[in-house]
Amino acid sequence: MDIKNYLKDKKELVDSFLESYFASPLTPKTLNDSMAYSLSAGGKRIRPVLCLAAYEACAKDGNAKTEDIVPYASSLEFIHTYSLIHDDLPAMDNDDLRRGKPTNHKVFGEGMAILAGDGLLTEAFYMLSNNRQSAAGLHPEAVLKVIREIATASGIHGMIGGQAQDLLSEDAEPDEETLAFIHRHKTAALLTASVRSGGMLAGCGDEQLFRLTAYGENIGLAFQVIDDILDVEGETEVLGKPKGSDEKKKKMTYPKLYGIERSREKAKELIDGAIEALNIFDEKAEPLRAIARYMIERKS
Amino acid sequence: MDIKNYLKDKKELVDSFLESYFASPLTPKTLNDSMAYSLSAGGKRIRPVLCLAAYEACAKDGNAKTEDIVPYASSLEFIHTYSLIHDDLPAMDNDDLRRGKPTNHKVFGEGMAILAGDGLLTEAFYMLSNNRQSAAGLHPEAVLKVIREIATASGIHGMIGGQAQDLLSEDAEPDEETLAFIHRHKTAALLTASVRSGGMLAGCGDEQLFRLTAYGENIGLAFQVIDDILDVEGETEVLGKPKGSDEKKKKMTYPKLYGIERSREKAKELIDGAIEALNIFDEKAEPLRAIARYMIERKS
Repeated sequence: MDIKNYLKDKKELVDSFLESYFASPLTPKTLNDSMAYSLSAGGKRIRPVLCLAAYEACAKDGNAKTEDIVPYASSLEFIHTYSLIHDDLPAMDNDDLRRGKPTNHKVFGEGMAILAGDGLLTEAFYMLSNNRQSAAGLHPEAVLKVIREIATASGIHGMIGGQAQDLLSEDAEPDEETLAFIHRHKTAALLTASVRSGGMLAGCGDEQLFRLTAYGENIGLAFQVIDDILDVEGETEVLGKPKGSDEKKKKMTYPKLYGIERSREKAKELIDGAIEALNIFDEKAEPLRAIARYMIERKS
Repeated sequence: MDIKNYLKDKKELVDSFLESYFASPLTPKTLNDSMAYSLSAGGKRIRPVLCLAAYEACAKDGNAKTEDIVPYASSLEFIHTYSLIHDDLPAMDNDDLRRGKPTNHKVFGEGMAILAGDGLLTEAFYMLSNNRQSAAGLHPEAVLKVIREIATASGIHGMIGGQAQDLLSEDAEPDEETLAFIHRHKTAALLTASVRSGGMLAGCGDEQLFRLTAYGENIGLAFQVIDDILDVEGETEVLGKPKGSDEKKKKMTYPKLYGIERSREKAKELIDGAIEALNIFDEKAEPLRAIARYMIERKS
């Protein structure tokens, strides 16, 4: 299959939804602009795309069209974007550049950046609970399950827990257990929830959900390992941020703990494991498999 | 009725739920401590209490016991507490003292305070979507409506919008329209949603919800007017923060725009309006009426 076209099509679905979302301007306008700035700063929309691909992998006759799932999938991009805005703040990672553009607080000031992040996070839950579920033929019970899934993955037992541990571990000696905790929580949890949410919205069975979870956890960890490698080996202009910034900030990373070669092997093993987990699915899961393969080749 | 006892009983219900929530410690512990610190810093739990009182005012035979509604009501305290932590940050109001104790970032640092706020906000939606709704005999559809209600009131069209306008209006000349916008969004929106959520959880009818909304909007505005008056006239040790801090920060306030006397009349009118709105309810709404009367007498 042509994974590049698939990714492009799905990204366009998400992008056009995000654009329409900010079409009717909000008061105060600066808040609107601040949120829209970071949401439109590019990015691969990998979390929404994973959600849509998992939905399609599990879709049954009578399920809603992929288009109807886009608002639910897009809530994941809201959450991801909020986490980037807050992570970049001076009190956190203190980054000036993100995806090749000045970070949110550099443009709108720290106070507005904090509020834009808070706004995106809250809006994600608004979108998830919006009353389009009946139009999409979704059961309220399933939607509540998805809200719980996403709140867990992005909350204190997931992403925020990982970010807090990351903050506490700067300047600390790298150790395997802490590094695994940070990566599993900070990055893998929301990626896994993205995949699982797609399955849940399609009403998948327990075995399918179990396999999607294994797939998600594997690509989630691989994603972070590859991120760490790119920070050492990537090109600043392709990355959209200065390479070597983990080293500069004394971040705990895979290459620091295992070296580049072993990190690359680790990423390869994880991707193989992700694809293996999908062996009960038919060809409708081909995009999920292709995304896993594509991940290891990415340059930014 | 003895409103002080009623408030005390309901506050205890909420407090004991909040305590149990942080009983099993989270990793990393500092995140746990930071959230628990601000949640346990006192406060009247007015939002959860309003939710419970509105629930009781509308409760029918066969509705769940008040105890079963406490987790939903408590989510409002999580959201309120997160908003205080973020508001106190140096990039926002830059406050060192809250309820007589050092603010969260003064104790845990700015980065952890941002994450504690993010964590409380996310956890609120986890609590709202947690699978106790069936045990409490609530319809998933009603729970989704409450999530949407609370997300709207605390989000960009509610509290965050008000906070953003407040931030943008510092040092500006006070004008009536902007002041009304800030108060309606920053404070009244979540108070109104607290009341409405209680009604929705009890399955109230349209006319009841309409009246609860009017009640909520009136006490919500009154609450802020009284806050502004107390900032001028209150005692520092009773307030738990230095009086005159609005003036120092050049905040737009009611006394600044209308003077103390007219502000006091305004508060009185709003409280009368709130009680009037409840005239279709029977004696089960007596706590709501008493809360409105009590509000105008508060000293902190």
